[in-house]
Amino acid sequence: MATETSQSSHPTSDWQELVARKRRECQDKIPREWTLSEDVLKEVPQHLLEYNLPRRSGLLSDIELDITENYTATELLVKLASGQVSSLVVTTAFSKRAAIAQQVTSCLTETFFPEALERARFLDEYLQREGNPIGPLHGLPVSLKDSFCLEGVQSTVGYVACLNNPPATKNSALVTMLLELGAVLYVKTNIPQTMMTGDSENNIFGRTLNPHNTSLTAGGSSGGEGALVAFRGSILGVGTDIAGSIRIPSLCCGVYGFKPTTARVPFGGQFSGVMEGLPGLIPSAGPLGHNLMDLKLFMDTVIGSGNAWEYDHTAAAVPWNKTATVGSDRNGSLTIGVLSEDKHFPLHPPVKRALERAVEALTKAGHRIVRIENDSKENLSVAYASRLAFQYLTYGPHVDNIGPSGEPLVASVAKFASPMFSGTWPVEQEQDTLYKVSELHVAREKVSNAWRQEWVEKKLDVILAPGSQNTAVGYDTYGWPPYTVMWNLLDYPACIIPFGKASKELDPEEMKTGDDVQPDYHPEEVDGAPCAIQIVTPRFQDEKCLAAAELIERAIRD
Amino acid sequence: MATETSQSSHPTSDWQELVARKRRECQDKIPREWTLSEDVLKEVPQHLLEYNLPRRSGLLSDIELDITENYTATELLVKLASGQVSSLVVTTAFSKRAAIAQQVTSCLTETFFPEALERARFLDEYLQREGNPIGPLHGLPVSLKDSFCLEGVQSTVGYVACLNNPPATKNSALVTMLLELGAVLYVKTNIPQTMMTGDSENNIFGRTLNPHNTSLTAGGSSGGEGALVAFRGSILGVGTDIAGSIRIPSLCCGVYGFKPTTARVPFGGQFSGVMEGLPGLIPSAGPLGHNLMDLKLFMDTVIGSGNAWEYDHTAAAVPWNKTATVGSDRNGSLTIGVLSEDKHFPLHPPVKRALERAVEALTKAGHRIVRIENDSKENLSVAYASRLAFQYLTYGPHVDNIGPSGEPLVASVAKFASPMFSGTWPVEQEQDTLYKVSELHVAREKVSNAWRQEWVEKKLDVILAPGSQNTAVGYDTYGWPPYTVMWNLLDYPACIIPFGKASKELDPEEMKTGDDVQPDYHPEEVDGAPCAIQIVTPRFQDEKCLAAAELIERAIRD
Repeated sequence: MATETSQSSHPTSDWQELVARKRRECQDKIPREWTLSEDVLKEVPQHLLEYNLPRRSGLLSDIELDITENYTATELLVKLASGQVSSLVVTTAFSKRAAIAQQVTSCLTETFFPEALERARFLDEYLQREGNPIGPLHGLPVSLKDSFCLEGVQSTVGYVACLNNPPATKNSALVTMLLELGAVLYVKTNIPQTMMTGDSENNIFGRTLNPHNTSLTAGGSSGGEGALVAFRGSILGVGTDIAGSIRIPSLCCGVYGFKPTTARVPFGGQFSGVMEGLPGLIPSAGPLGHNLMDLKLFMDTVIGSGNAWEYDHTAAAVPWNKTATVGSDRNGSLTIGVLSEDKHFPLHPPVKRALERAVEALTKAGHRIVRIENDSKENLSVAYASRLAFQYLTYGPHVDNIGPSGEPLVASVAKFASPMFSGTWPVEQEQDTLYKVSELHVAREKVSNAWRQEWVEKKLDVILAPGSQNTAVGYDTYGWPPYTVMWNLLDYPACIIPFGKASKELDPEEMKTGDDVQPDYHPEEVDGAPCAIQIVTPRFQDEKCLAAAELIERAIRD
Repeated sequence: MATETSQSSHPTSDWQELVARKRRECQDKIPREWTLSEDVLKEVPQHLLEYNLPRRSGLLSDIELDITENYTATELLVKLASGQVSSLVVTTAFSKRAAIAQQVTSCLTETFFPEALERARFLDEYLQREGNPIGPLHGLPVSLKDSFCLEGVQSTVGYVACLNNPPATKNSALVTMLLELGAVLYVKTNIPQTMMTGDSENNIFGRTLNPHNTSLTAGGSSGGEGALVAFRGSILGVGTDIAGSIRIPSLCCGVYGFKPTTARVPFGGQFSGVMEGLPGLIPSAGPLGHNLMDLKLFMDTVIGSGNAWEYDHTAAAVPWNKTATVGSDRNGSLTIGVLSEDKHFPLHPPVKRALERAVEALTKAGHRIVRIENDSKENLSVAYASRLAFQYLTYGPHVDNIGPSGEPLVASVAKFASPMFSGTWPVEQEQDTLYKVSELHVAREKVSNAWRQEWVEKKLDVILAPGSQNTAVGYDTYGWPPYTVMWNLLDYPACIIPFGKASKELDPEEMKTGDDVQPDYHPEEVDGAPCAIQIVTPRFQDEKCLAAAELIERAIRD
């Protein structure tokens, strides 16, 4: 790794000092009365959710426990809009719970509880004065991945080199929208160094732990969101996804996550640290939450009648179709394509079991199942899409945000997981970069076209796929994300539904991938970890994706 | 220009022979009974439309004259669907008229009249047998720019080097759609060599002349469409537009033209001869016609409920919103931003007069006019957008389709009109191409963002702009198209409405642009040439663009 310390105002030796100062600042921002004592912390077991720390801690009142545990965001909004519950109470409840989550999972980066409570008070007064909520998200706390910028709050995305940056002077487009819609913003959440791994660890904010089992990764890059939502320290969170960064934490932490088509949710004004303007894969922003209805609420509220373009020039003026249905027949029965396992990326037994159990339930519910023979055709192959995406993600000039501060690479970044064990470069690697980009674009068009053909020929309504080869796994072993990144390559919307749990009883045999990149299956290690399925539709069919997810969920929960 | 004759199977000396053979083939495809005698041709004056050649020629019956002259496409479709008129009669009428147009304006490339008549007969039989039209475009002849591919028909886009290519083996996506919708395809239309100039001339098919005045250009690159539609040899045509190629022929030939947002009308499967996969400006396909209703008909029919993606992976699954309205107040009054003249690209007096007359009429009709101070801000500047687009359009590796055959450059290509007299390169020109592309992307984002801000701050519903600095002008003098290309850079939909005519009485003074690139105004030369206005909305607001165009047209026609 090249270091350019000459550009840096702080020599490599003092990166730890910078970090220590930042950590103290962050810690000081958590009200003392919300901190857990050393005694309490000592007792906290690995399986955090089962342990029910928020109740045990005694920090939350019964009402606050009720608010954070027993409602959907949609339900809470009804209560907030009618004044049945105040935003101050709701915001306090989620702030406390987020503060507790932070102390046991390191899921947060920046907190701004006083500002959030102040805003909640303002909204409560507004409602009382005007008799109407200020907007459709009136008073609801919403958490945000660290890459979103809020005026007055720092955005470092975990780079030590960014610790000397001043706080943001402008809100990201989505932040402006959320505030106008009435939301209360209270925390930003943790990410991996580089935002390109499945382990949300960096040298500033540490490693986010999975609240289901703190010895497992919370996923990444929106890992802080995954952990915080799973802990119910957030009722609705926003992540971003260029290779799986919304969906990986969702499936690792057992929550719902939705990666929309790009250009639907305003993405502009975030801080990422990457080179701007490079042609390649495009990230999209989307929600993590506790149920499909809340994901839909987010999409419908933010996109609404299609005026997101007024906030962000990258957002398309395409309204959210509230009344979208999916499935051509009247019984609401779907034609569901089931993605085949790629031989290079074999599914861990619990993942396979969840998928097959879903297929069974869907068949029983009267849906039509079509197995897609994607492994036999290059343009439909998961491995090929992975390599194409990898070549896109790595061809460009690299902006070194790590070297200048002297901080080391975290383990998951140092590993640099790659799908290249599965085959050759899709296009000639050793050539002029512009030609390479052009060839990548052409190769990508072919993949898009092949999927279009498959979709039309098989008359698919939706694709059911694994979200990952594996469940949440031990630290720094998540590897390359083949089953999420392929939908970024295609820019297809994709939704994660938690479904079932890994079980060492049901799947007692170890499974080795044998590739030195992807995680092996260790029944003991992941026992009890959430499993998930992934629901996919073509580009701009986000409404259908969520509508299909609802039908599928109904069938599999029965 | 580098020539690579070693790659060519035909030496440079015989390009004329190839052309001569092709021309004979094309001529032989026009039925002898539809050809004009030398005597008739000799008499044909410069002002073709006034002369009414179709009636004088005696080739069209009164019914055929009526069909080609007195109906909108929308009206004809009603007659076709009810069997009140047969597709055979309608197709024969437009085929004859197109054949005449070809003989006096060189507006066609490929003709397939026998196949069209055969299909018309099939559709007539279908209607009789089934009692229902086959689709919403049942029996309607539609003309297509040469770049569209039809199985069994050659696509050369005017390159002699492509004359040895076999006929296309696959339909373009839009061709498949149009056929499924019930259209009859009968001709492809002429374009400029390279498809990148405002003069539709190439060494195979010659120069398309403007039927209003054959001493003027018909515009380009969809110049054949412009001339054919103006001559009423087509009721509805399809062009493509990356810098103005639908709108320039529309405004030159006095017809309506609409450049949609990219990804709305299926573009895939065309032949262009350019390098695939280069990141840059993206072309879009759209209609040319005789009125706004027919443009809307085309958009609504092709996009419909949003299933164009099934035909073309580049098309977004976004339905056409039939019920879109524009304007926030209930009186249907609009806030209309009027684009300022750029000092580097001053408007010819007739163009300025048309624009100001429109502004007057709109004010009178109660619309709110906001003058946009775009000339004073770089990111809103027409000239800057032009240079940025030019840098995009020229940075990439050039595929030489001309050198191999030995054909010469046509005059408009040899001139290589550039906007660079108006200022410097927006991004450093002498640098690694990949960095240049990235910087171009970033610069383009800034322009998009600046226009978004302007739109929101000024609360615009729509922008009213000139379509060009000039009207149709003498051969090979059209120059660079600043007022169209800027909306391609932004990917904003834009519609041309013909409005008024140049008049040497009203604007008797010559005007020199003084830049050696753009055309001077010669009152005598362009007297009587059509003028036009351009209506623009933000990306994906195609429905609003056409809705606003209707309101604006209503006001200016009163």
